[in-house]
Amino acid sequence: MKYNYSEIYEQELIDHVIPFWMKYSKDEVSGGYFNCLDRFGNVFDTDKFMWLQAREVWTFATLYNELEARPEWLEMAKHGADFIEKHGRDGKGNWYFSLAQSGEPLVQPYNIFSDCFAAMSFAALYKADPQEKYAEIAKDTFYNILKRQTNPKGTYNKAYPKTRNLKNFALPMILSNLSLEMEHVLDKKTVDDLLRTVIHEVMNVFYQEDTGLILENVNLDGSFSDSFEGRLINPGHAIEAMWFMMDLGVRLKDQQLIEKATEIALHTLEYGWDKEFGGIFYFLDIMNKPVQQLEWDQKLWWVHLEALVCMAKGYTLTGRAECKDWFERLHDYSWSNFRDPEHGEWFAYLNRRGEVLLPLKGGKWKCCFHVPRALFQVFKTLKNDQSA
Amino acid sequence: MKYNYSEIYEQELIDHVIPFWMKYSKDEVSGGYFNCLDRFGNVFDTDKFMWLQAREVWTFATLYNELEARPEWLEMAKHGADFIEKHGRDGKGNWYFSLAQSGEPLVQPYNIFSDCFAAMSFAALYKADPQEKYAEIAKDTFYNILKRQTNPKGTYNKAYPKTRNLKNFALPMILSNLSLEMEHVLDKKTVDDLLRTVIHEVMNVFYQEDTGLILENVNLDGSFSDSFEGRLINPGHAIEAMWFMMDLGVRLKDQQLIEKATEIALHTLEYGWDKEFGGIFYFLDIMNKPVQQLEWDQKLWWVHLEALVCMAKGYTLTGRAECKDWFERLHDYSWSNFRDPEHGEWFAYLNRRGEVLLPLKGGKWKCCFHVPRALFQVFKTLKNDQSA
Repeated sequence: MKYNYSEIYEQELIDHVIPFWMKYSKDEVSGGYFNCLDRFGNVFDTDKFMWLQAREVWTFATLYNELEARPEWLEMAKHGADFIEKHGRDGKGNWYFSLAQSGEPLVQPYNIFSDCFAAMSFAALYKADPQEKYAEIAKDTFYNILKRQTNPKGTYNKAYPKTRNLKNFALPMILSNLSLEMEHVLDKKTVDDLLRTVIHEVMNVFYQEDTGLILENVNLDGSFSDSFEGRLINPGHAIEAMWFMMDLGVRLKDQQLIEKATEIALHTLEYGWDKEFGGIFYFLDIMNKPVQQLEWDQKLWWVHLEALVCMAKGYTLTGRAECKDWFERLHDYSWSNFRDPEHGEWFAYLNRRGEVLLPLKGGKWKCCFHVPRALFQVFKTLKNDQSA
Repeated sequence: MKYNYSEIYEQELIDHVIPFWMKYSKDEVSGGYFNCLDRFGNVFDTDKFMWLQAREVWTFATLYNELEARPEWLEMAKHGADFIEKHGRDGKGNWYFSLAQSGEPLVQPYNIFSDCFAAMSFAALYKADPQEKYAEIAKDTFYNILKRQTNPKGTYNKAYPKTRNLKNFALPMILSNLSLEMEHVLDKKTVDDLLRTVIHEVMNVFYQEDTGLILENVNLDGSFSDSFEGRLINPGHAIEAMWFMMDLGVRLKDQQLIEKATEIALHTLEYGWDKEFGGIFYFLDIMNKPVQQLEWDQKLWWVHLEALVCMAKGYTLTGRAECKDWFERLHDYSWSNFRDPEHGEWFAYLNRRGEVLLPLKGGKWKCCFHVPRALFQVFKTLKNDQSA
């Protein structure tokens, strides 16, 4: 590779990204984290989103577990965990979508991904500090997710029963990551069953042999639904899921799974890349019809960062030169468009041309997660690879 | 004014817009209309959204009532009305959000604006063809809206009770138009009470004296909420509401209301206009913080068309030269960016630079409504005005 990327990504993580969150995101008054930070780190809104609170807990616990056991990182993880443990759940153990600054519930638990990231965060924290209560919260939440998985939105589901029953890719995708993240707190059979199921869902049900692409929604029987939801492609989701598959391939010593995931990711990149302005589109329609999402042509931070991780892993695990080429192309695009060299962390939302659309570092959907996780994953992956 | 706009708008309506819908939107097989039409009029999706079905009924009934009693327009209105009368409501008279092509419910009645536009459409149809059942559907729906208005989303409301109770501008805004649209089927006291209430809500509660702007959401007591929702400005909504207020001013012979509405509209245009690329922004934050809406900088057809109507009315009702200037600026922008001279109708979604973002003429939120209504309103307004 052209540069010593491993070193570059490690340095970016430690010098430019983690300090931003350590300095600006801690709410010393009410506990938990400030999620909404502008370019300079100023808090522009005090709402606390459970996705993001949990993800920041996970990030600091994981850095402590896997990068370096710095006490301030563990302390930072616990600062968020204490807050969400105290305020984050309703009486049935479902995680709210958001809380007001001091912890009053704001938005009901309609979104199962709040639960996914909560489970993931307490499992990581348990690894850092093996208090039984952390494992209990992680497990209770996890089994609650499994219970809710066939109707994740519960009473907030607006689909009329039976007319068009679709299943969505996001949950099996997240579960394929969660299964490995939670392995140390679950029994072997649960993990083995789950792995088998999610790999099947991702690689056989949502993945379409004929187009070589992954659909965001399919009919319950796996068939194609010619509807807005059924035609939808989210290249970032598919590419992120492919590095989860590669991790599972490593865990299961299944080189065939790794090769297939690499192939799908490369094809999705070719398909989703904006040939005119560069970057990966946010949403596309598999029949090339107009999508519902007005933000379809925007370039999002997480899409590009997950693609970098995927190509780094694809390269070290298969040696395919296309992965190296894509990694370098994605690196050039991302570092020159998303990175903020002046004030730390990365921008989140660019317009099609790659110009900053919203000058924020944290918001309703962005927090201390994709940037540090991806920087760490790329660093770790390329460091272990002699050829890179 | 520079041109004979009245003539231009009438001709555009009759020659370039209505024929598009007459030709392409009728579903001869299942009844109702196709909502999703690409640039050329091809159906790209067959889902039927109640907002849009009802709005197309309203448009054809209103053209029949107010422009010319062409039998094919009445027939077209009834074609849609028959379909939604048969399939559009649940057992309690709430209007579904969407149906599949042949009428099976797809999305539950979570959105009260489906009901608003259904009431409006049957009231207009009753004027064209005074069958008692049309008046009944309009009235039943209208009273159901009033019953639901304090919690319009019902069980689909995700807000946790009491932490942050906001009320939204859209409903009083739509009711201020609906009150006049329904006047002929309601009793006088209901209309008078409603007019008083909605004018108060729009002009005293949501309108903010200090900034001269209308907020999209306020606390139940009318105070400002420093939250994403509370800070939100939707210039198009505010400007559209101001021509509803002008209509009410005419109806109530209240010149002061007209003057105030004109002043607010002019100020909102100044505030919402994109000084760099032209056009009106879709969403802004009153404290200039990052908004949640990724589509904030896009230029939407309805925003610009409603602003044209508002400035035409403001000019003829107050004679203010700024209204004329804004009308001409909006006309130049809209006709060169939204209008499709080749295939009829107008584009809906432009990016910040004014380039077409989605090449559709009808979609989940666009149908035969804003373009024809605005063309008709501008035509009618300027035709009656000698000075224009």
